Amino acid sequence: MRLLASTAACVLFSTVPLLADPLPSWNDSDSKSAIIEFVDSVTEEGGESFVPEDDRIAVFDNDGTLWSEQPLYFQGIYALERLAERAKEDPSILTSDARKAAAAGDMEGVMAGGMDGLIDILNVTHSNITVEDFKADSYEWLTTAQHPTSGLTYAQMTYAPMVELLEYLREEGFTTYIVSGGGIDFIRTISQEAYGIPPAQVVGTEGTTRYEVKDGVPSVIKDGGVSFVDDKEGKPVGIERFIGQRPIFAAGNSDGDFQMLEWVTAGDGPRFGMIVHHTDGEREFAYDRDSSIGKLVKGLDEAAERGWVLVDMANDWSTVWTGQQ
Amino acid sequence: MRLLASTAACVLFSTVPLLADPLPSWNDSDSKSAIIEFVDSVTEEGGESFVPEDDRIAVFDNDGTLWSEQPLYFQGIYALERLAERAKEDPSILTSDARKAAAAGDMEGVMAGGMDGLIDILNVTHSNITVEDFKADSYEWLTTAQHPTSGLTYAQMTYAPMVELLEYLREEGFTTYIVSGGGIDFIRTISQEAYGIPPAQVVGTEGTTRYEVKDGVPSVIKDGGVSFVDDKEGKPVGIERFIGQRPIFAAGNSDGDFQMLEWVTAGDGPRFGMIVHHTDGEREFAYDRDSSIGKLVKGLDEAAERGWVLVDMANDWSTVWTGQQ
Repeated sequence: MRLLASTAACVLFSTVPLLADPLPSWNDSDSKSAIIEFVDSVTEEGGESFVPEDDRIAVFDNDGTLWSEQPLYFQGIYALERLAERAKEDPSILTSDARKAAAAGDMEGVMAGGMDGLIDILNVTHSNITVEDFKADSYEWLTTAQHPTSGLTYAQMTYAPMVELLEYLREEGFTTYIVSGGGIDFIRTISQEAYGIPPAQVVGTEGTTRYEVKDGVPSVIKDGGVSFVDDKEGKPVGIERFIGQRPIFAAGNSDGDFQMLEWVTAGDGPRFGMIVHHTDGEREFAYDRDSSIGKLVKGLDEAAERGWVLVDMANDWSTVWTGQQ
Repeated sequence: MRLLASTAACVLFSTVPLLADPLPSWNDSDSKSAIIEFVDSVTEEGGESFVPEDDRIAVFDNDGTLWSEQPLYFQGIYALERLAERAKEDPSILTSDARKAAAAGDMEGVMAGGMDGLIDILNVTHSNITVEDFKADSYEWLTTAQHPTSGLTYAQMTYAPMVELLEYLREEGFTTYIVSGGGIDFIRTISQEAYGIPPAQVVGTEGTTRYEVKDGVPSVIKDGGVSFVDDKEGKPVGIERFIGQRPIFAAGNSDGDFQMLEWVTAGDGPRFGMIVHHTDGEREFAYDRDSSIGKLVKGLDEAAERGWVLVDMANDWSTVWTGQQ
């Protein structure tokens, strides 16, 4: 199938040489050809694979698929930094080893006890604040704080090839959604600016919120605690709940995206599944089977037989981060 | 404010006589003038009340606001009828008075014990079925079953003036959402066809679902039980969760919409709140303070001081149902 796709793309390029390349940050590769061949096939009116615009729904994981996720999910780093700031004012909040590690900027120490320590830190830094204030604070951090190894802001660490892919799909009549295990409010602060995706097209893990009227002013307040986890089996559930129809295109990078890819590509008609494989230790980070963040085992083992395209970052992308362009 | 709005609309009509009336099923009235004056003000580029398209979000309750809700919410009638059919095959499921009443087509009997009986019937008829199959069955019922008093199908009992209002707002750059206490999947089956609102722009009460792969076929299955109630305080919470920004226009008809109207109209800048008041016992149903369905007390008492427009169905609408056009 990949060879066919590649051939079709070559024919396209040679017969229509004046068409601008929709994916300039992608090297010529099987992945790129497969994407373009799929998009051409579902948008060709009268073609046997034609899909009406209403059904051209594409879903993208965020951490590790649209922006980086190492050495820790960006939202985790945000929570650690905010906890450290609070602890300076009130050290009595450092009631656990994980919290103490966070205050010391020790990410490995936070993760030493598993995800529980991180979740506790997320809860304490994401509660008793209106959703609007939380989003304003997240936005400020994402656009000004500096990533520990790249030196870029977090907002600059979106993947240029993926931002191009989102734009290309929208130009071809797709509606693009983020479907992330990350927090929905955290991503929404930046989704329009970073990806051209409006807040309502972000599906994610949800914190509990409550409606409250205080001194005559109504607001929606983050309570701490999680009401929905948009990961693994949660992704198809979240998509059905938020979007209400099965997408035809899904992209992810870890086994947290497996069920989403499985469900999307099992539907009738043309389907596209894609896994971003982090092979580029030089320009980004190289990790898969043994990583605690973005672990990819099942996806690697089954991509070929399921017809999912495995994107080789080192080989397939000419640029990595938008902030480097 | 209403007089001003009315005057502004008259000026508009007299100076631009060739513009087609965007709301032909609305009689000339304060309500109609207020709507048009608001839309004109937020869409006038350079005007002091101008709102960019990205922020023109409008939310509408469904039952009693976009379609009828008497003598029982349509989804309730659907559940009763489906339970009655199942009971014919297996009478052993009639384990409560409410279920027995449902099987006998006795709506009052179902409601005699309060909402619990109805919720139980909704649960039993909305579980162990894939979301896709449930939507197909709901759609079939909505477009073929006959309402007990009007003789129309349920899909024909949408309000023509409100469908016009939705279209008018969209033409003026608004994005229109349904925010309903009713079930999200039930409404999504018909939202595009009935209102021009795609499934992803429907917020509603949610049943629990699970992802399951059976014989290699993955699907999302309704479990029974409710994971989110999109009513009263739940409406601002649901809007924040699904849409991720505060709308500038809200329409409802019962006190279940009070918090949504309160939150929407408390935001900065121009805001519009509207309550459909069921005053038309001849053409539709007349009810408010004493009704068990669509009870309206607080909204009636506070509409004037809060600046919410109270739509008088009997006076303001020239047509009621789309099925009568």
